[in-house]
Parts: sequence; C-alpha cells; structure tokens
Amino acid sequence: MDQFFRKEDFEKYLREHIPVTAAMGVEVEEASQDQVILLGKFANNINHKKTVFGGSLHAVATLACWSLLHMNLVRSKREAPGEIVIVGSSVNFLHPVTSDFRASTRIPEQEKWERFLKVLDRKGKGKVELSAQIMQDGKVAVDYVGTFAALR
Amino acid sequence: MDQFFRKEDFEKYLREHIPVTAAMGVEVEEASQDQVILLGKFANNINHKKTVFGGSLHAVATLACWSLLHMNLVRSKREAPGEIVIVGSSVNFLHPVTSDFRASTRIPEQEKWERFLKVLDRKGKGKVELSAQIMQDGKVAVDYVGTFAALR
Repeated sequence: MDQFFRKEDFEKYLREHIPVTAAMGVEVEEASQDQVILLGKFANNINHKKTVFGGSLHAVATLACWSLLHMNLVRSKREAPGEIVIVGSSVNFLHPVTSDFRASTRIPEQEKWERFLKVLDRKGKGKVELSAQIMQDGKVAVDYVGTFAALR
Repeated sequence: MDQFFRKEDFEKYLREHIPVTAAMGVEVEEASQDQVILLGKFANNINHKKTVFGGSLHAVATLACWSLLHMNLVRSKREAPGEIVIVGSSVNFLHPVTSDFRASTRIPEQEKWERFLKVLDRKGKGKVELSAQIMQDGKVAVDYVGTFAALR
C-alpha cells in the first residue's frame, strides 16, 4: 500500500475512486498519519450567493476525516480496502466561506485513539469520532464531527 | 419569480448557480410548496466501495431542504434571493445507497411552520428545522435534519 504515502498519489486515488472529489477540485495538501489537510476550490463549489455550498464544505470535511482514518488503518495493516463506513455526522456552519478552503483534521487524543484500535483489534470492529475544521479569515467557519466505523 | 414554478426551470437554476449539483447529476423530480424530491445519479456519486459517497447524500438532502424553503419564501414574497443560510445539520447514514437516489423533504407540521413564518415576519429573521430522507430498498438509508435561517 505504498501509494498512500505520497500525497500526489493519494489525491489521484481520491479523484479516481470518488469522482465527485475531482468535480470539487479537491487537492491533498497534507496527508500524514497525524494530520490531513484537503483543499477545495472556490470556483468549483460556489453557490447562488457566491459563497461555498454547505454540501461541499461538509463533503470535504468528511473526506479529510475518512482519509486520516484510512491511511492510519492501511499503514498499520488493519484495513482491507473499503472497510470504513461513515455512520453519522454533525456540522455547524458558523461563517460563510468565500475562497478556496482547507478542511483539516488531526488524529484524536492518544487515549481515545488507542481505545478505538484496541476495540477494533479485539472485536474486529470499532467506532471513532473524528473532527475537522474549515477556517475563514482566522476564524472557524465550519465545525464538523463525523462518526466512522471500521471493520477488520 | 415565475421561473420557480416549473421543475425544469428550477433544475436549470440549481445547475447554473450551484455547479456541483450538475456534477452530482441532480434532477428535480418534484418541487411543490409541500414537497421537494431531488434525484442524484449513482454513477456521478460513486465512491471506492461502489456505494454512494456520504458527502453526496448529505449534499442532495441539504439541497432538497433548501429548495423547499427557498420556493416557499419566494412564492410568499418573503425572500429576496439569497437570504437563506444553512446553520447546521445532522445526518445518520443507516444503510449504504447503491443506486440512483432520491432525497425527499416535506413542509413541517403546520404549527411549527406558522411559528417560523410569524417570527420571520415580526423580527425579520427566523430559524427552522427541516428533515429529509433517502430510501433504499424500502428502508430509510439516510436520515437528515438541517437548520436553516432566513432573513427578510
């Protein structure tokens, strides 16, 4: 699974396998085991108000969290491809987004993360909450939390 | 604002003003003041698991609710175009979606709806929760609730 270590290749993977990401102009800015930052293009995601469509903001935040989980599980050899599903999400749209935007997510605090991996290893399935933010002019514009389930 | 009365024209409006809807293959199946049904194409919204990407499901559900609110406010002459914003949403993904899908939303119960309009008329702004569902094989696959704010 070496292809996931280079962000260019991960971007290609996303665009090929989830074509709506290409339509949204998604680019991978960072994709480490600790942090994922995905960029979405303003022009691709504009709405009738000349701000970014809320559906696109939620979609790119979801992808960032999924990507972080995917890469961590692949790299630790826990995931057969395709064994992560999103269970639910909750998002607050605090300010309009009016430019290219970055959805960033970090690995959860160590205790929470290790508990998730332990349950996954023991029971063959586990659930974890991941959060992502999109900033605009130094403020959190979009606050996202997604719950993901993983199967071994 | 006669253009919003014909679903073909509303579909054209969505695709022109929110181009990601064209990328998602969104079609307007029904657009009355009581109910909106939007279709999303499977092929456009596929993911690496050959199911519909959760971001697309959430986006089309959001659009259905926004459309219902938009048309009601335009038709009752309350809305200057562009005066609805999404404040937040919460979605549960209960089953995978593996075909073209329909997000449907209905106008809320009368009491709730009239309270919203009353506050909007009196204070110049109001907030309302709208829900949408996406069915798969006779079961609710996606259960969506969005909170929208309207300004006069």
